[in-house]
Amino acid sequence: MTKPLRIAIAGLGTVGGGVARLLTLRASELAERAGRPLELVAVSARDRRKRRAADISAVEWSDDPVALAGGGADVVVELIGGEDGPAHALVGAALRNGKHVVTANKALLAVHGAALAALAEEHGAALKFEAAAAGGIPIVKALRESLIAHGITAVRGILNGTCNYILTQMESSGRPFADVLADAQHLGYAEADPTLDIGGGDTAHKLALLSSLAFGIKPELSNISVEGISDIAPEDIRFAREFGYRIKLLGIAKLTPKGIDQRVQPAMVKLGTPLADVDSSFNAVVAHAGEAGPFTFEGRGAGEAPTASAVISDLVDIARGSAGPAFGRPAHKLRTVSPAPPEARVSPFYLRFRVLDEPGVLADIARGLSDAGVSIESMLQRGRAPGEPVAIVMITHECAQPSVARALKAIEASDKVLGTPSMIPMEAG
Amino acid sequence: MTKPLRIAIAGLGTVGGGVARLLTLRASELAERAGRPLELVAVSARDRRKRRAADISAVEWSDDPVALAGGGADVVVELIGGEDGPAHALVGAALRNGKHVVTANKALLAVHGAALAALAEEHGAALKFEAAAAGGIPIVKALRESLIAHGITAVRGILNGTCNYILTQMESSGRPFADVLADAQHLGYAEADPTLDIGGGDTAHKLALLSSLAFGIKPELSNISVEGISDIAPEDIRFAREFGYRIKLLGIAKLTPKGIDQRVQPAMVKLGTPLADVDSSFNAVVAHAGEAGPFTFEGRGAGEAPTASAVISDLVDIARGSAGPAFGRPAHKLRTVSPAPPEARVSPFYLRFRVLDEPGVLADIARGLSDAGVSIESMLQRGRAPGEPVAIVMITHECAQPSVARALKAIEASDKVLGTPSMIPMEAG
Repeated sequence: MTKPLRIAIAGLGTVGGGVARLLTLRASELAERAGRPLELVAVSARDRRKRRAADISAVEWSDDPVALAGGGADVVVELIGGEDGPAHALVGAALRNGKHVVTANKALLAVHGAALAALAEEHGAALKFEAAAAGGIPIVKALRESLIAHGITAVRGILNGTCNYILTQMESSGRPFADVLADAQHLGYAEADPTLDIGGGDTAHKLALLSSLAFGIKPELSNISVEGISDIAPEDIRFAREFGYRIKLLGIAKLTPKGIDQRVQPAMVKLGTPLADVDSSFNAVVAHAGEAGPFTFEGRGAGEAPTASAVISDLVDIARGSAGPAFGRPAHKLRTVSPAPPEARVSPFYLRFRVLDEPGVLADIARGLSDAGVSIESMLQRGRAPGEPVAIVMITHECAQPSVARALKAIEASDKVLGTPSMIPMEAG
Repeated sequence: MTKPLRIAIAGLGTVGGGVARLLTLRASELAERAGRPLELVAVSARDRRKRRAADISAVEWSDDPVALAGGGADVVVELIGGEDGPAHALVGAALRNGKHVVTANKALLAVHGAALAALAEEHGAALKFEAAAAGGIPIVKALRESLIAHGITAVRGILNGTCNYILTQMESSGRPFADVLADAQHLGYAEADPTLDIGGGDTAHKLALLSSLAFGIKPELSNISVEGISDIAPEDIRFAREFGYRIKLLGIAKLTPKGIDQRVQPAMVKLGTPLADVDSSFNAVVAHAGEAGPFTFEGRGAGEAPTASAVISDLVDIARGSAGPAFGRPAHKLRTVSPAPPEARVSPFYLRFRVLDEPGVLADIARGLSDAGVSIESMLQRGRAPGEPVAIVMITHECAQPSVARALKAIEASDKVLGTPSMIPMEAG
């Protein structure tokens, strides 16, 4: 077991550079952990002349990342990103050559994960992706290897640091989404094109992987309903707080009597529960493991050190010979499922109406809700401004999402109700 | 890989019964996870005639647990408990026969862990103990396999559910330790002889294992200073709350410039940080992984389902061929260290004095502290009762533990100060 594990890295950005640096800096510690040396033998990146933190002068260079699949490495670390293009080509070619693959590429796996897992098995190679789900948090390993005895009933996670940062800033500053986003972009906490983060797409990629590990299904983006955070108003955040809740963008995958419900959605989580207190740039996942109860995992979800930590742990696993199936079960056993219907989404809901402060408006709302079978747990109306718009906020009892949607549709028709009401589910933390 | 993994269980109490039941109930799911069937082939327990949840009629029975080491099993699950006696004999004999061992026995490993790890390696067997540290929380695997890239700088954990339950009840009811303990015993949340729990010994056993995994040292109980919760007064809990803190019994292992400091101690943790909000029967561990930051793990720390979950995850690991060293590094590489001196314990401290409400008492206290170089961050004195005992509470700036101890010794000598002052460190959550 003293033969080194030969490693090729495609993509020397923040994470790739961090991995290369750790392989040198912590070589002897990692060799002890792995039972053999981890040796960086080849790299590929866009610009050969760029100065880098890690010394790669002695390492083979390739301009074409896909060429790493044909080289002398035992394992290829794919850090290029993107669901298709060179990342996909490299991972496919490497696995077909029987090389192990470690990747942080959630988009690639959310789309091609089942096929690549099958390819890996066919060629006796490992496909590992701890860095793809929640940065440094070892949730992939936990769902794949640890919380397996009882079967998972639900997974809920804060999986996108940008959204968590923006929501945290909106709460502390009281400012609207667009302003906070602009600041976040200026400070480098949000991308120039932030669509994938704030629209919920990135969370959906990660959720697809966690769902697969938890429930033994194929990762399948089209089964996930996705809603981002751009419609969250500062007053929703304020009202949430008054009711003892906080709004977080959650990825949710839940076993329901009607099937597996997967969605990305802003949700109210109760203050004092684990997900409510997750700080700005942190991620967290709560996995409900049947009788064994809920398990919470929290840590940094992005950035050089946490992501490189996850990549290194996969490399050490591979060095030790761990080559179980990518999603914890043989690829041919992963089930193809249809998404649970919206009726499966049962929870209390937060509703906010913008109404003209006129007689009869509350009656209109109450009738709309009651006609759809939705009952109210608590209500809040602040101030009076005859003839002016005011907010009415309600928390419903537990009910099915389509009933609430039906009620809101009817209520919207009232000429005393302005705009589209807000509707946010309350989720266990 | 379709040859079953043959399992023998020694000890069919709550956990052993739970493992046996899951091996049947979830056989096909676990076989998928493990790549081969997990087959219970032999058991040993005290009373053969006892009714059990799991059907073990077809399984070989042995009155002598140590005999399982010589049978046809590939792996022996030791759930007898106790640091010596049959548990130790069985584990040693099984490893010497090249059989893998899974154990939940923290006392055994805290005392004999290094020697047993060496024995396991010598005979090519795995020694796994996920269930020994924090019940169902996969912290052993996380420290052994996941958070390894940057090196751990500190581990802090709530590792004993009985203590956490008692402290939680003391806070919610305002009642003294002895009353709450008696209730807990009555309700079955505390043992008839609760010494190992409330004295901190159980937490020390678990901490010894986490320290070994985190820092590459031999588990060594004598390096851990241990203080239990029996001296915590309801008023300390109340004052903690006023300062925005909560008292928890922590196991702490920290890399300091003066060595590795390991201790079990009631500590103040700030409300809103992960350890402060850990509910009654839950455990939690925060591991600081250098630049990768803190990672928090929370879940049920005891009971049938969580503990059986941890045992099963070890069995599936073994079925998949995972047989790395027990403490994450080769046994001969585990270092023997001396404990860091008390000077290494630097933090703010909470101090409570019981004093006669007389002129000059505050001056005596202030002089004692200042002579020892301890400075005060905030102070609280409630009410006035001339000539009667009142409480004075202080939070110090960051300082070394021996300085505070020296100050308290001097202050105790004052005839206006009654009894021994309370002194509780404030720890990061």
